[in-house]
Amino acid sequence: MKAKTPEQSKTIMTDMVLPSETNPINNLFGGELLARMDRAASIAARRHSRRIVVTASVNHVAFNRAVPLGSVVTVEAKVSRAFKTSMEIFIDVWMEDRESGARTKANEAIYTFVAVDETGRPIAVPEVLPETDLEKERYDAALRRKQLSLLLAGKIKPNDAVELKALFV
Amino acid sequence: MKAKTPEQSKTIMTDMVLPSETNPINNLFGGELLARMDRAASIAARRHSRRIVVTASVNHVAFNRAVPLGSVVTVEAKVSRAFKTSMEIFIDVWMEDRESGARTKANEAIYTFVAVDETGRPIAVPEVLPETDLEKERYDAALRRKQLSLLLAGKIKPNDAVELKALFV
Amino acid sequence: MKAKTPEQSKTIMTDMVLPSETNPINNLFGGELLARMDRAASIAARRHSRRIVVTASVNHVAFNRAVPLGSVVTVEAKVSRAFKTSMEIFIDVWMEDRESGARTKANEAIYTFVAVDETGRPIAVPEVLPETDLEKERYDAALRRKQLSLLLAGKIKPNDAVELKALFV
Amino acid sequence: MKAKTPEQSKTIMTDMVLPSETNPINNLFGGELLARMDRAASIAARRHSRRIVVTASVNHVAFNRAVPLGSVVTVEAKVSRAFKTSMEIFIDVWMEDRESGARTKANEAIYTFVAVDETGRPIAVPEVLPETDLEKERYDAALRRKQLSLLLAGKIKPNDAVELKALFV
Amino acid sequence: MKAKTPEQSKTIMTDMVLPSETNPINNLFGGELLARMDRAASIAARRHSRRIVVTASVNHVAFNRAVPLGSVVTVEAKVSRAFKTSMEIFIDVWMEDRESGARTKANEAIYTFVAVDETGRPIAVPEVLPETDLEKERYDAALRRKQLSLLLAGKIKPNDAVELKALFV
Amino acid sequence: MKAKTPEQSKTIMTDMVLPSETNPINNLFGGELLARMDRAASIAARRHSRRIVVTASVNHVAFNRAVPLGSVVTVEAKVSRAFKTSMEIFIDVWMEDRESGARTKANEAIYTFVAVDETGRPIAVPEVLPETDLEKERYDAALRRKQLSLLLAGKIKPNDAVELKALFV
Repeated sequence: MKAKTPEQSKTIMTDMVLPSETNPINNLFGGELLARMDRAASIAARRHSRRIVVTASVNHVAFNRAVPLGSVVTVEAKVSRAFKTSMEIFIDVWMEDRESGARTKANEAIYTFVAVDETGRPIAVPEVLPETDLEKERYDAALRRKQLSLLLAGKIKPNDAVELKALFV
Repeated sequence: MKAKTPEQSKTIMTDMVLPSETNPINNLFGGELLARMDRAASIAARRHSRRIVVTASVNHVAFNRAVPLGSVVTVEAKVSRAFKTSMEIFIDVWMEDRESGARTKANEAIYTFVAVDETGRPIAVPEVLPETDLEKERYDAALRRKQLSLLLAGKIKPNDAVELKALFV
Repeated sequence: MKAKTPEQSKTIMTDMVLPSETNPINNLFGGELLARMDRAASIAARRHSRRIVVTASVNHVAFNRAVPLGSVVTVEAKVSRAFKTSMEIFIDVWMEDRESGARTKANEAIYTFVAVDETGRPIAVPEVLPETDLEKERYDAALRRKQLSLLLAGKIKPNDAVELKALFV
Repeated sequence: MKAKTPEQSKTIMTDMVLPSETNPINNLFGGELLARMDRAASIAARRHSRRIVVTASVNHVAFNRAVPLGSVVTVEAKVSRAFKTSMEIFIDVWMEDRESGARTKANEAIYTFVAVDETGRPIAVPEVLPETDLEKERYDAALRRKQLSLLLAGKIKPNDAVELKALFV
Repeated sequence: MKAKTPEQSKTIMTDMVLPSETNPINNLFGGELLARMDRAASIAARRHSRRIVVTASVNHVAFNRAVPLGSVVTVEAKVSRAFKTSMEIFIDVWMEDRESGARTKANEAIYTFVAVDETGRPIAVPEVLPETDLEKERYDAALRRKQLSLLLAGKIKPNDAVELKALFV
Repeated sequence: MKAKTPEQSKTIMTDMVLPSETNPINNLFGGELLARMDRAASIAARRHSRRIVVTASVNHVAFNRAVPLGSVVTVEAKVSRAFKTSMEIFIDVWMEDRESGARTKANEAIYTFVAVDETGRPIAVPEVLPETDLEKERYDAALRRKQLSLLLAGKIKPNDAVELKALFV
């Protein structure tokens, strides 16, 4: 299996915010954005692996900016790193102001997908070859996130999370 | 403002998994479950605060068990701890087997909501009074999660995340 | 087949009223509520019978209270009585005021479901053992409702609807 | 206000049965059909009254025939009788077999709507002038149904439901 | 295969315009209307052919009149002409004003469908026998439209589009 | 108002084909694709004009390739030419094969949008500056399409459709 660049899995999903997707103060529901990001990320994971893919986990997501009704929202997903059968997908979300055309970062999120065969069994995926500085930085951080994730799940011990531990001691 | 128990905000959302919500191997999309949990959690946060509430963040979520088409899914949300204007909501997801009636834990997730006024400004919420052992345990862990969240967001330094640091050293 | 209590089939479906579900004066469409009640009732019927279930009939439903946009609506369904292959499900609907937290009865409805096998043929279901006073009252009334239903369908004669006739003479 | 014929409010809603609207044995959900009938009936009531209309009640509905996935379903609604501010709408549902073109009666239902002003207060509607034999029969039966409905709601006494009582004694 | 009249395939789809289907100035999205017309046209094509049908093309559609939120929209589709395996469907769209009851033509559109077997291969359909003057006029124009369509697709040469050429020279 | 390039309005909408969007032979409904293209085109028109935009017309659309359930579909829209208050948007649709990763052209369509102010009145938009050969070709053809459209609407006479007439004589 030949390694692929993040650019090769890049997925762009642009769409509007409709009235049925907003809360009482007319901003996009957090849950609706989580669902859109999941769909974009699953397509990126599928483009990288050419397999059926299923959501394995969602990293911590902060909703720092409200996305108002009528906004145009662009969800951009790229595979940032692959581990045997799983892929970390980094998602950037922008919103656009209609009048000024200004594009603002609304969110960032990290999902993990697993490639599976028709029976649902995990199956190996190609490696990732980061190209830009940002891609390399995300590639490196992916390992620390994986350690944190395994640690929180009780699958490794604090002392084995070497890169993570280095933050504290 | 009088403190409330987690039981007072308890929200149960039972529903089926329909064909339009499933992936190619006939299991519920991760993104669809994230959206259902957001809706249940927002109702719990609203019951606790009696305010308009908006999603502030989603903690790490692992999708350990696939939820097949046709399953009955129960999403149960309770406010686990409150911090001035924000609330941590703990969500348990079960699925049921039609024939045996067996109920299996499918997922766990933690969302944070903020109470806001009509203009979107944060507003104070009542405290939480945990009653059961599980509620007390989740109440205590909420503080560590808040520290981790602030740490990851770069808002506090590793050495100030006292409870979290204790895990490593 | 062991009899079951109504509590064992109890199904709670809590959700919000969204803009796409409301009429021109901003209240929940009657049809949307009928559909939610059908879904909750079908889950209760399935929990009682552990079978595939299909809607057989809907009793008279009155919409006495408008349910405004943004309300939290709780649909609660329990099997009230079983007849060979069919189950009567009693549904209570509440709505909540966000500010006061007050919970008001919005509706009541009675659906009948039939348990079927994979080919759609009716199949026997467990009996119901009512426990509370309200459950017992609903259990008794279910027989009168069944007679009225058979009478209206022309399947029994007025004089055979003994319990019903007693209301008039 | 000039009286209108049922033909003047006649509303036809033809549509397909999609996968997301079917139960595990691939037939249309009862709740989905109830919602479609509500929408067709509300348009008929609006055509008769030229007012905002809200669902007041649904008469007993029996689901005698399953409607399979892929069927073409025609919902036909006409105002059958008017009472001061309310209208009874009679709904006939047909399904069509694609290959033979045969059209089968799938259901019948009776909804009641109330005309309201912008503040939700009931407002008078025109009378109904039945023309065909079937329309006249339904017009007459509407009075008995209204009595039964008032009786079941405890708003009149059995002895005052003159036409209904005549069925029993 | 016996020829059929346009009346035999006539399909009426009446429905409301909901908030989730409108643009920022509260009119029905063009795309939503295109989708409704496609569904109505596909049912008309199916009624004519009694086959599975798939959309082959959409003729030029002009949106001359905005359709406001809350309107009742009636989409009426009839097969206007058949060519071996394809059918031209003529669609008229009306909207109604609630208060005056006035019915205005909102749109006209022409879709072409092809009848196919279970494997997707085109299959012959009955001819069309126009009855009214309007049906005859549309039947004749259908041939010119087919020529224009073939011309635009580069499948025939300008000089072979006899009827169309006559417009210019 | 400064002219803009087609690249500046480029809008990419990538998404999957779900079961609720497919016909009986498991391909994407034509109407669903028309609706997706309308949404992508409206965002492109909005990016070009920074105004509220409404669909004015849809050019002839041919559905030459079926898009199977589970496909990833990419809709790409760019403003190809502007006329005072209206914009022609050229839309290319691709689908991807999961296993080979091959990307196939599924469709092409041309929509026209009009920029309007808050009251719905048409308002001037910037000009378009085509850059690539394909953009230039589409820019030139847009004028012929506009003439054909005006001709079909009876707004100009055949002899005034100079560029179009040149095709025939």
